[in-house]
Amino acid sequence: MRLPKAVSNLIEQFEKLPGIGPKTAQRLVFYLLHNPQSELESFAGAFSRLKKDTMLCSVCHNVGESDPCEVCGSNGRDENIICVVEQPMDVLVIERSGGYRGLYHVLHGAISPLNNIGPDQLHLFSLMPRLKSGKIRELILATNPTMEGEATAMYIAKLIADEKLPISVTRIGRGLPVGGDLEYADDITLSRAFEGRREI
Amino acid sequence: MRLPKAVSNLIEQFEKLPGIGPKTAQRLVFYLLHNPQSELESFAGAFSRLKKDTMLCSVCHNVGESDPCEVCGSNGRDENIICVVEQPMDVLVIERSGGYRGLYHVLHGAISPLNNIGPDQLHLFSLMPRLKSGKIRELILATNPTMEGEATAMYIAKLIADEKLPISVTRIGRGLPVGGDLEYADDITLSRAFEGRREI
Repeated sequence: MRLPKAVSNLIEQFEKLPGIGPKTAQRLVFYLLHNPQSELESFAGAFSRLKKDTMLCSVCHNVGESDPCEVCGSNGRDENIICVVEQPMDVLVIERSGGYRGLYHVLHGAISPLNNIGPDQLHLFSLMPRLKSGKIRELILATNPTMEGEATAMYIAKLIADEKLPISVTRIGRGLPVGGDLEYADDITLSRAFEGRREI
Repeated sequence: MRLPKAVSNLIEQFEKLPGIGPKTAQRLVFYLLHNPQSELESFAGAFSRLKKDTMLCSVCHNVGESDPCEVCGSNGRDENIICVVEQPMDVLVIERSGGYRGLYHVLHGAISPLNNIGPDQLHLFSLMPRLKSGKIRELILATNPTMEGEATAMYIAKLIADEKLPISVTRIGRGLPVGGDLEYADDITLSRAFEGRREI
């Protein structure tokens, strides 16, 4: 028996999403078949408007509804600090934690030679003019603690060192996550936790 | 920081799907932001066409592209056997196994008093006329081996017993799944496997 084209088509679309395999895609589509058409239309509309109704901030490249974005356009932020992150979602996560009041710079990726992503594929070109404005005191490199994130952080740190800019460049702290268990920590995390120890 | 409306809107839509929590929904939407608009439009189109381009077979209530569906309209099937399943996906799974050549009847659910689903909410009304046509020799009850599935199977078996129809009613075999491990089988599955033992 063949699946109806409309069904297999939506299954294929779902399979393209990260973390959704053929079985999950099938289950989701058969679930959707039980929903009213209006529900499906509102899903369709949300898809089609996702990028139409959002824009990238021309200053920090974060996803927002305006340009400059809410953070860059705000008067209440510390304009002397920029935090570099890989993805717009990272901005959301940091904002939720509530511990940071500076500006951002979203790279939209990390340097990854294996995936043919070099510095030119990232939103890096616009970072140097921001740093050279003279306002910036500190640059926090908050790329992910992965091979790619570390390489990207090192690349940016080297750029600033080469230009001899009077900016203190910091990397977010590495160590044990709060709520984590010493017993289950991997070797690298544990050795980083010891390196990053502080007096209490 | 507020998420753009278009972003939070699609996140909400994803959260309505079974097995997709807030974190997964967020991850999917931020992933989609990196896709070209054409990709989003084809996703949107697949959603909006899902039900428009499919129909329920008026005989067996399976989802298909035609009425009667491919199975009901085929000449190559055993028209003396009907297999009752809960969902259209069950038909797909049984067809893939390749071990069954009869007809189907899709209930679109199972009796579940806790969720206010009684026999009237299922596609049951049309089963009796099919059984009374005189053609049917066997009815296989292939509802899920859950409380609801068992209750539904018992309800249908009782309907047929009450009508004194000359149809043999069978329930799909229960026992250990192929590839399963005795050690990890639950008590009920194991006791059913013993009840259903066969000479080899």
